[in-house]
Amino acid sequence: MGAIRYELIKQCRQTGARRGRLHTPHGIIETPIFMPVGTQATVKAMTPEELKEIGAQIILSNTYHLHMRPGEKLIEKAGGLHKFMNWDRPILTDSGGFQVFSLSELRDIKEEGVTFKSHIDGSKHFISPEKAIEIENALGADIIMAFDECPPYPADYDYTKKSLYMTIRWAERCKAAHRNTEKQALFGIIQGGMYKDLREEAVREMVKLDFPGYSIGGLSIGEPKPIMYEVLDWTTHLMPENKPRYLMGVGSPDALIEGVIRGIDMFDCVLPTRIARNGTVFTSRGKVVVRNAEYAEDFRPLDEECDCYACRNYSRAYIRHLFKAKEILAARLATIHNLRFLLKLMENIRQAIMEDSLLDFKKEFFAKYGYSEK
Amino acid sequence: MGAIRYELIKQCRQTGARRGRLHTPHGIIETPIFMPVGTQATVKAMTPEELKEIGAQIILSNTYHLHMRPGEKLIEKAGGLHKFMNWDRPILTDSGGFQVFSLSELRDIKEEGVTFKSHIDGSKHFISPEKAIEIENALGADIIMAFDECPPYPADYDYTKKSLYMTIRWAERCKAAHRNTEKQALFGIIQGGMYKDLREEAVREMVKLDFPGYSIGGLSIGEPKPIMYEVLDWTTHLMPENKPRYLMGVGSPDALIEGVIRGIDMFDCVLPTRIARNGTVFTSRGKVVVRNAEYAEDFRPLDEECDCYACRNYSRAYIRHLFKAKEILAARLATIHNLRFLLKLMENIRQAIMEDSLLDFKKEFFAKYGYSEK
Ligand SMILES: [Zn+2]
Ligand SMILES: [Zn+2]
Repeated sequence: MGAIRYELIKQCRQTGARRGRLHTPHGIIETPIFMPVGTQATVKAMTPEELKEIGAQIILSNTYHLHMRPGEKLIEKAGGLHKFMNWDRPILTDSGGFQVFSLSELRDIKEEGVTFKSHIDGSKHFISPEKAIEIENALGADIIMAFDECPPYPADYDYTKKSLYMTIRWAERCKAAHRNTEKQALFGIIQGGMYKDLREEAVREMVKLDFPGYSIGGLSIGEPKPIMYEVLDWTTHLMPENKPRYLMGVGSPDALIEGVIRGIDMFDCVLPTRIARNGTVFTSRGKVVVRNAEYAEDFRPLDEECDCYACRNYSRAYIRHLFKAKEILAARLATIHNLRFLLKLMENIRQAIMEDSLLDFKKEFFAKYGYSEK
Repeated sequence: MGAIRYELIKQCRQTGARRGRLHTPHGIIETPIFMPVGTQATVKAMTPEELKEIGAQIILSNTYHLHMRPGEKLIEKAGGLHKFMNWDRPILTDSGGFQVFSLSELRDIKEEGVTFKSHIDGSKHFISPEKAIEIENALGADIIMAFDECPPYPADYDYTKKSLYMTIRWAERCKAAHRNTEKQALFGIIQGGMYKDLREEAVREMVKLDFPGYSIGGLSIGEPKPIMYEVLDWTTHLMPENKPRYLMGVGSPDALIEGVIRGIDMFDCVLPTRIARNGTVFTSRGKVVVRNAEYAEDFRPLDEECDCYACRNYSRAYIRHLFKAKEILAARLATIHNLRFLLKLMENIRQAIMEDSLLDFKKEFFAKYGYSEK
């Protein structure tokens, strides 16, 4: 038996979208699901209790950041990441690959691994597939990611192909290095850029390695959304039905819906929490920049249809005041609301799948939100 | 009937300290009490629910700040300060005097009032006693303060005397301007610097004006603590027994205990929340700078004797990590803890008064905390 088990409950007859259940060592996750991001062992501005109140089933944390600070050894001493951060539901850690390639300076990518300088103090570090897994094993998340290279967008065919084959070799090394298969499920990452044959090759090779789940990487990195959807169309139908599928770095409402329609089960993104701290919130009628002057005397909640703590108790006028006054409660309220908005959206999506009406739901949601159909 | 009523329940036989009950339009306050400060219509980093959980009975907000941003008219439109900030327990607003004199630039003090420039945008403003009360009436706090001048420390006798008499004339004007006596209790402020005869004169004149409560201002502004205690010794015994006594700007554990022993019922201070955000916490064995390296692998709670949310769920190591990583949760957890520490201290003080043992309590607390007896 592995660490996790995916149970496909139902597929939407309108779209083929999957309603599932992921059994993990820290509990059951109803999918499809959005995972709030807790980069540094905390979902910014939130407590675990608040995350539970808004329906968060699993959170993501970042291996690169935790390796840099406070270090996986400290977290291991504390009893693992769950105990360290007081979160007893499932956790997923990424491999650090994405951060090494995007945050760090002077990186040097070789077959063996990557040498780079810390974004905090400039100190020199080396991460290999084996090292990434060693760190993830020490952190102890329920789901861990293989160490991969995420090519930038755009990237030419040859670079992408070369990178993909290295990612595949790294995935094998990750699998061999993984010491904790009964408690932590290692996902393989499907790369291949925006090239159909490379994506297909990536799925084939990853599936051969028989991971307990697969993520699709290298998307939502600057490419137009129609291209992302096309890549999903090439990819997901080749993935095994009995394993969870995780689309990395996606968290806009439209892309969540489109992703689910294309067979995705799991998403994560810093977008909802990041824009919240800057004073922008999702509402059922589109985004609202609540720090703008037009909301100074708006005594309505952020979203009249939302059931979150912020919307039950505070006005746009008050929250705008908190942003103008640079008060911590501003970030707290906007973060609670934005995360609740996406988690509620996923609840509605799950219900629509059960009712075979996800396409109807999408049309209604898009019309109200103000998205034009592509 | 006025807005509030003070009920003296018991005096400690060891010290004369007062155990009382203050009846206000938004509920009963058990005194002596420490009031957390919510300068900009929010106690920094906290929600009202969290304040209730740690036992906050009343909070303070700042008239100067709210006048500058978002403006009392907006708050009045929102239904008053309680509703605006979602706090249904008592609120006290200061008069703005202290901030006008300490924060603003280019102030010009005349008998009529004070002209000054905003600390936010440099715009020119004028506040008179009448204007201060007009603002406080619009905000709608249960207890409001008269507009006073707080002379700096040190200030010479002549300046202090002149200032005191202006503060007394301003207090009369505040009383005459107050439009909401049934719902808001106006407190007179006793000034007089560090001069015995002026403090005595201040009490006599303020008591003549028959306010429903009195605060002692002009202390905790840089003078040595023994001087502050001496001023209290000169002052409180002259104050009426049937009115609450509020010592402004005091929030260190020793000064709270010493203040209660000298007959004070109410305190406020930004200290516990400010040092919390900088990574310093109170503990039963003295202050701990939790952001320091020595706590990196300290898996004990901030204070093993504390019952707060932070201490029940997180280690010093985790909270230190949050501070190093500049995470909002760091400020939240340290603030919850520091406020709970002071509110719990006041609970213990109230109990010690009931048991006629406040002197014993003080000795025990000081010994453990590490204060040397003065
Ligand atoms: Zn909401
Ligand atoms: Zn505590």
